[in-house]
Amino acid sequence: MTATADRAELIATVEDRLRGVGKVIRRSMLDALPDGEPVQWLYGPMREYPSRPGKALRPALCLSAGRAFGAGPDELLGVAVAIELLHNAFLVHDDVADGSEMRRGRPTLAASHGLAAALNAGDGLAIVAGQVLRRATRGMDSDLAESVWVEFDTMALRTLEGQATEVGWQLDNVDGLGPGDYLDLILHKTCWYTTIHPLRVGALVGSRGAAELGPLVRFGFHFGAAFQIRDDLLNLVGDERTYGKEILGDLYEGKRTLPLVHLLSEADTADREFVLDYLHQTRAQRTPETVATVRALLDRYGSIRFTSEYAEGILSVAQEYFEQAFADARPGPDLDFLRALVPYVWARWR
Amino acid sequence: MTATADRAELIATVEDRLRGVGKVIRRSMLDALPDGEPVQWLYGPMREYPSRPGKALRPALCLSAGRAFGAGPDELLGVAVAIELLHNAFLVHDDVADGSEMRRGRPTLAASHGLAAALNAGDGLAIVAGQVLRRATRGMDSDLAESVWVEFDTMALRTLEGQATEVGWQLDNVDGLGPGDYLDLILHKTCWYTTIHPLRVGALVGSRGAAELGPLVRFGFHFGAAFQIRDDLLNLVGDERTYGKEILGDLYEGKRTLPLVHLLSEADTADREFVLDYLHQTRAQRTPETVATVRALLDRYGSIRFTSEYAEGILSVAQEYFEQAFADARPGPDLDFLRALVPYVWARWR
Repeated sequence: MTATADRAELIATVEDRLRGVGKVIRRSMLDALPDGEPVQWLYGPMREYPSRPGKALRPALCLSAGRAFGAGPDELLGVAVAIELLHNAFLVHDDVADGSEMRRGRPTLAASHGLAAALNAGDGLAIVAGQVLRRATRGMDSDLAESVWVEFDTMALRTLEGQATEVGWQLDNVDGLGPGDYLDLILHKTCWYTTIHPLRVGALVGSRGAAELGPLVRFGFHFGAAFQIRDDLLNLVGDERTYGKEILGDLYEGKRTLPLVHLLSEADTADREFVLDYLHQTRAQRTPETVATVRALLDRYGSIRFTSEYAEGILSVAQEYFEQAFADARPGPDLDFLRALVPYVWARWR
Repeated sequence: MTATADRAELIATVEDRLRGVGKVIRRSMLDALPDGEPVQWLYGPMREYPSRPGKALRPALCLSAGRAFGAGPDELLGVAVAIELLHNAFLVHDDVADGSEMRRGRPTLAASHGLAAALNAGDGLAIVAGQVLRRATRGMDSDLAESVWVEFDTMALRTLEGQATEVGWQLDNVDGLGPGDYLDLILHKTCWYTTIHPLRVGALVGSRGAAELGPLVRFGFHFGAAFQIRDDLLNLVGDERTYGKEILGDLYEGKRTLPLVHLLSEADTADREFVLDYLHQTRAQRTPETVATVRALLDRYGSIRFTSEYAEGILSVAQEYFEQAFADARPGPDLDFLRALVPYVWARWR
């Protein structure tokens, strides 16, 4: 087979599994959501994001890690559903905070139902996530249940810390950030809830608390970071229809992504001043013309290329940590799927 | 003693106790909040509302009901702190949704830190509320702990249902509402988390699940409704410095409060049209002049008087239910405090 065919097969295999997990998780999320009134103003809006097909990466990681470490086939289902519900809660509030218009190819909740309804819907999804996790931990040994909850709360707070820092950087126009600051940001904002938590809690439940969780954090961090940087790149070079969000949305919001951090450190004085002035503007003041200029500067200073190479470096590290993180896991389709995810993220953005 | 002196003493006694509870709960809330980074953008903002002295009615109800039904002195403390933390989380998000400027006599979080930081702070407070309740239920019998959690989640969802309905009425310009609709709204929006839940969960834990909870719902609903209607009235006739929020804020927001519902049902065609036109405007379109006109109409059609009498009627019903709700409670200062609350609310707004 050619390398291109290998790559296509890898993508197809991983996405097939993600689609399968997505379908089960989506149905379970919708089953967990209350049916009561007011449908129009609360429970209807709460169903919208969970109804839209997402990547299902988080539940897939949790379910596979769980089984690879010894869990029964559906033992982690409730935990995975809770994670995905909290993810949806975060998305709803993020879209409010960012003033985003599109999510998963359709209008954001705030855009279609207004800010207040989106706020309430996000709060409601977080409550239902807790209800689901409580049901899921009810049958567990009480120490294990307690550990799962500590993991869940820690993950939720880490995520908020990251989101708050990202907003703070924009609001206070924090300059002089380097790649290290950016990595620390996405460790909190993305990695904890996208990769580290699903893997850790899967391993924790699957091994009945016996698995060593440290190496999973290292793998999860590097894998998650590469995943987030890929997302930042897609926001700059992707196609709106397949991406599902506004292209260049991060630039309009003034997010300190890795390409932008690189640009600020590399640009000559005049260009740097231009970008800093741009960042000091409000979102409403940023015109398509100035956004296009910043976008062109990212090419001129090699910031896109730098970011892409940076992510590839991080992915290699993730790959190195993989065997260590899953040394005690049992071979089989779950471990194969987890192993395939690293080259998948790579294959997906080239 | 004269009636005025009695009244002054009643107010002083109740407020003394509320202040005492408030102090303990405030310290416990601040102890429960994490100390980590980012202080400036997350953990600092999260501490702001819990640091501001509030009424502490909810924890006072919970603690007193708990002890009156047999709990140890501080057995309900964690539960009461969790309730107050969730209350603060709701306040933060409410102020975002309402676009409010002032809370407890100082700027709202959204006004001082921006929308995104307020969103994150509210989410964070809700997570910490859950952590606190988890610690509080850890030592309980597992069935009782489960009941407490079911009560907590139910309360949280009822509150969101009420908030969502209130916003929906404004957004969709729902006309033809009567006092019954308004009562149903505040049952969800206010009574569940202000009175019914604190009383029920106190009785539940204090009696180890033995207390009959139905009568407490009836008492809590009527007491809480009178409390909310009093708040609506204070928003129309109160003094900004002691009230801590913007006077006439509800009118600016177009909230369907009981006085407004009454006005719409009583006004002649021209005045009704004027009020409906007013309600169809956005908040930004509403001028101090039109707000003053609507405020004057509330006097002209007796809507303030009607509302005041309506609330007194509801309070009498609350008083009737009181003895039934606390028939199995043990006499003492906790029961005395609970009994004093009904005339206190009454005394407080005359």
